[in-house]
Amino acid sequence: MKITIVGRGLIGGSLAKAAIRAGHDASAFDKGETPRVEDSEVVFVAVPPSAVVEVVESVVPRLRKGAVVVDMTGVKGFVWEAMRKYACSKDFVFVGGHPMAGKERTGWANACADLFDGASMILVPYPSCGRLTLDMLEKLFLQLGFARIVYTDPAHHDAMIAYTSQLCHIISSAYVRDELAKDHKGYSAGSFRDMVRVGAPDPDVWTELFSLNRDALLPVLDRYIKRLEIFRAALAADDCAAIHRELEESVAAKRLGVGAV
Amino acid sequence: MKITIVGRGLIGGSLAKAAIRAGHDASAFDKGETPRVEDSEVVFVAVPPSAVVEVVESVVPRLRKGAVVVDMTGVKGFVWEAMRKYACSKDFVFVGGHPMAGKERTGWANACADLFDGASMILVPYPSCGRLTLDMLEKLFLQLGFARIVYTDPAHHDAMIAYTSQLCHIISSAYVRDELAKDHKGYSAGSFRDMVRVGAPDPDVWTELFSLNRDALLPVLDRYIKRLEIFRAALAADDCAAIHRELEESVAAKRLGVGAV
Repeated sequence: MKITIVGRGLIGGSLAKAAIRAGHDASAFDKGETPRVEDSEVVFVAVPPSAVVEVVESVVPRLRKGAVVVDMTGVKGFVWEAMRKYACSKDFVFVGGHPMAGKERTGWANACADLFDGASMILVPYPSCGRLTLDMLEKLFLQLGFARIVYTDPAHHDAMIAYTSQLCHIISSAYVRDELAKDHKGYSAGSFRDMVRVGAPDPDVWTELFSLNRDALLPVLDRYIKRLEIFRAALAADDCAAIHRELEESVAAKRLGVGAV
Repeated sequence: MKITIVGRGLIGGSLAKAAIRAGHDASAFDKGETPRVEDSEVVFVAVPPSAVVEVVESVVPRLRKGAVVVDMTGVKGFVWEAMRKYACSKDFVFVGGHPMAGKERTGWANACADLFDGASMILVPYPSCGRLTLDMLEKLFLQLGFARIVYTDPAHHDAMIAYTSQLCHIISSAYVRDELAKDHKGYSAGSFRDMVRVGAPDPDVWTELFSLNRDALLPVLDRYIKRLEIFRAALAADDCAAIHRELEESVAAKRLGVGAV
């Protein structure tokens, strides 16, 4: 297939490399360039959410009829609303997408063909989207290394991502800022390593992601702070029965909710 | 060397296996058994902190003269005070210890000879401890796979561990309890995996560790909750400049404080 990728960051670069690895004819363009899209069957838009509409509008006049455009951003409510006017377009098909993969080092230099191996690809199509389009995308994403395709709606996506990704980045960012962090060497092991890994998210990228997903993120963050405060009260009172009960709840929650990750 | 280990959990078992791997004559006993210590040059006490004194007192009458006893517990202030009466013992030497290694699956079944490979061994000797004893221990711990020996005092140890280990376990335990956890499949990736890994700490073990380290842990937990609340306020106000500033601070803190972990 002929695939055009707009965006040469970690995701755009990895999509290009994974597509080439799978034998496709893929090219990635910086969003400042004019991407070649005239012959492309699929266009991946791997730019920040606020830039998606602008990119799509700039390529629409040159898209071949029936081309499928998929964005790769981490918020879906915002993008879905912004792109709604194209949902019933007869000339191309827009599908919301979010690849569940990343790493703490971003940019083209860190892009790799195996970034998506084993990951989920979330698709958020409009109800008008045809089955043939989705079949084609499913097959393509599996070729790129994804292990499974997950379909959902924007609200569920945004709530889940607030918890599974955004909250982790907030937690880690707050964690690394302690005054003791600079003295960790010799006193740290696996739990510290895990906790700091995503603790320096790109401020431009993540300010936008957090702000655009604010309605879904705030209740998740509030529930988390609440649980910490309950634990803090038990500790402050040296109430070992309450501390024990809290930890038992965590053991049960992890067994039930997380299982084998 | 002849080494006796009291405690057949993850740490005791791994010490035994690492010692055997290094060519030593090592045996591990459950704390309910009567350990053979009569010929041992070194005794490792790998039991919960509250059980250390009892174990040491039970073996003292049978220790060979000059034997070195090292506990392996995660709190040092408590153990140090409890063992202070033995600091100037002429019959054996007690040294506080804390191996900076572990994993989320505990017990003898998960013990392995390479658990300590590359890790730090923290030693908290009394001022009266002789250089020859510490030289012997350093050599031994390096043979067991540790990459470095770190010396400190109980207060610094307990503050550092409150941050580098205990806070991580509290964070992860609070994280896994969200109502959305059970739906994570398909919506989670690396940051989620890291965040949940230590989210089910053994309630008996960790209630004791948290409680015994309460004075060091509370201020660390309070600083962390404070930072989350500042971020929460910025998000609630949709104050993108403030969110951005918070993230910039995290990037700077991670670069300065964490560097290569």
